[in-house]
Amino acid sequence: MAVYTHVTAEEIAAFMATYDAGEVISFKGIAEGVENSNYLVQTDRESYILTLYEKRVNPDDLPYFLGLMDHLVHKGCHTAPPVRDRDGVILKSLCGRPAALISFLPGLSITRPQPDHCHQLGKEMAKMHAAAADFDLARKNALSLGGWQTLVRACQGRADEVADGLGALLLDEMAFLESHWPQNLPTGIIHADLFPDNVFFIAGRLSGLIDYYFACNDILAYDIAICLNAWCFEPDGAFNITKARRLVQGYSRVRPLSGDETAALSILCRGAALRFLLSRLYDWLNRVAGALVVVKDPGEYIDKLKFHRAVKSPSEYGLDL
Amino acid sequence: MAVYTHVTAEEIAAFMATYDAGEVISFKGIAEGVENSNYLVQTDRESYILTLYEKRVNPDDLPYFLGLMDHLVHKGCHTAPPVRDRDGVILKSLCGRPAALISFLPGLSITRPQPDHCHQLGKEMAKMHAAAADFDLARKNALSLGGWQTLVRACQGRADEVADGLGALLLDEMAFLESHWPQNLPTGIIHADLFPDNVFFIAGRLSGLIDYYFACNDILAYDIAICLNAWCFEPDGAFNITKARRLVQGYSRVRPLSGDETAALSILCRGAALRFLLSRLYDWLNRVAGALVVVKDPGEYIDKLKFHRAVKSPSEYGLDL
Repeated sequence: MAVYTHVTAEEIAAFMATYDAGEVISFKGIAEGVENSNYLVQTDRESYILTLYEKRVNPDDLPYFLGLMDHLVHKGCHTAPPVRDRDGVILKSLCGRPAALISFLPGLSITRPQPDHCHQLGKEMAKMHAAAADFDLARKNALSLGGWQTLVRACQGRADEVADGLGALLLDEMAFLESHWPQNLPTGIIHADLFPDNVFFIAGRLSGLIDYYFACNDILAYDIAICLNAWCFEPDGAFNITKARRLVQGYSRVRPLSGDETAALSILCRGAALRFLLSRLYDWLNRVAGALVVVKDPGEYIDKLKFHRAVKSPSEYGLDL
Repeated sequence: MAVYTHVTAEEIAAFMATYDAGEVISFKGIAEGVENSNYLVQTDRESYILTLYEKRVNPDDLPYFLGLMDHLVHKGCHTAPPVRDRDGVILKSLCGRPAALISFLPGLSITRPQPDHCHQLGKEMAKMHAAAADFDLARKNALSLGGWQTLVRACQGRADEVADGLGALLLDEMAFLESHWPQNLPTGIIHADLFPDNVFFIAGRLSGLIDYYFACNDILAYDIAICLNAWCFEPDGAFNITKARRLVQGYSRVRPLSGDETAALSILCRGAALRFLLSRLYDWLNRVAGALVVVKDPGEYIDKLKFHRAVKSPSEYGLDL
């Protein structure tokens, strides 16, 4: 929720002069993005988002993220196009940070998704999975089984400070996932962070997916599991099977799910819930007084994890096997 | 440097529907403004700034601030026009806060003003002083002599934590200003916070003055003194008399300064330096761990105050009596 690196008007003007993008008439720091500094830059022609990548992003991953966005745009996916400078370069440097200029993608994030939003999300996610199939770089998911083990070890001893019995729950869930995590499901490039803030709509129509900075190669249906957690629980904690069914139906219309994938959704949802529970728990236990970042409540994902642990059949997600 | 009140997409859509302003296609929280929450709202027609007034603004002052902005726009001054809803109302409410929609003013704040920028600023400030003369509301400057006395009392005991001898300097300066503050200079409406962040330029031309939330009725030349402090010192602390001369010349071209006003500039600059020294010192001594606000260094204004205390003649500001 902050701008970490302050860019002056003089610096932005010099930076923008390396693009064929018009004259800057406004630029404003945006109070969004937990990881990076973002500016909205308006020229006399167009609007852009300028992102300065801060320390939580590994610069070695940027060619993958930006190349993927560029690839997806050229395949007709709805996302924000990275802009090339006069020399054809996307990944640049500004104020000592890696930086990239991205075309502005109009749209609003919704806070109360309806079933039709979920359906559109499913379709667009499947389109993106299909379009990314021939992208030629790969990136391991740092927040899959191995990463969870590291976080469990880092958090488990103090987990009960957040909720009684959480330490034991983490160990139990980790052991279960290690022995049951699916090994033979279709893999490919996933977004891995398709929360409602990263999906834009205009007048009810999906206008694009943004923020590919967790994208990685992993089980495709795991991306669906992340979305079931992020989109299909009501504020009171109830799971909305209508939203879940519509999301998966939208997805399947573009890339039909196999029986194995449907059957694995419960365990994939458990993994997705554990992943966000662990990262939030880690941030919570290691939060710094005075930091500008708003730390998210890990409790929400404890409840989601417990929901999926009790699921016995895909019908509880509104799905048929 | 933050958004304090979070507005959802649904809330913004409902709010914007009360205006004849088009359909919202984007809205983003802006990491600017120490006092209020600001969003950049884009519709299919135009861009706007939506401001939610937070607790440091007295709601009773808002009709003065917004009415003044509206008045100045109609007088041809360069500022951001407040927008009326379908019922003609400017001051509204959103998420339990007073709120107003302001047309987006293109432009960039410069960080290294040149003499010509200072000249344009002087001219626009004088135009604004003249245009505000027939505005029919008045507002006392809460941060004039009486306000400084309150802040001196609140800070003086701990002032030496910031700089050796600062407590004694504050008492000495306050006593001097109480007995020497000018009583018969022309008064009117002043902006009172014309720092470089509140002045926009496009391609070297001044495009507007923003942020009228400290505007008040006070000595007109005191507004010049605030600008001499904010625009005419170099980063190394040196006073740039070329910038000062050009600023005052620009002002005088629209509203000539009297000999009394010129002669009083040194004491007005001392008052202006003390005012920002005190508010920064207060914020510094009372800063809260974890607060999102960046506290400005009071030291800069100690040095500025000391500079003006040593001034013997307006010629040291590059001016002739």
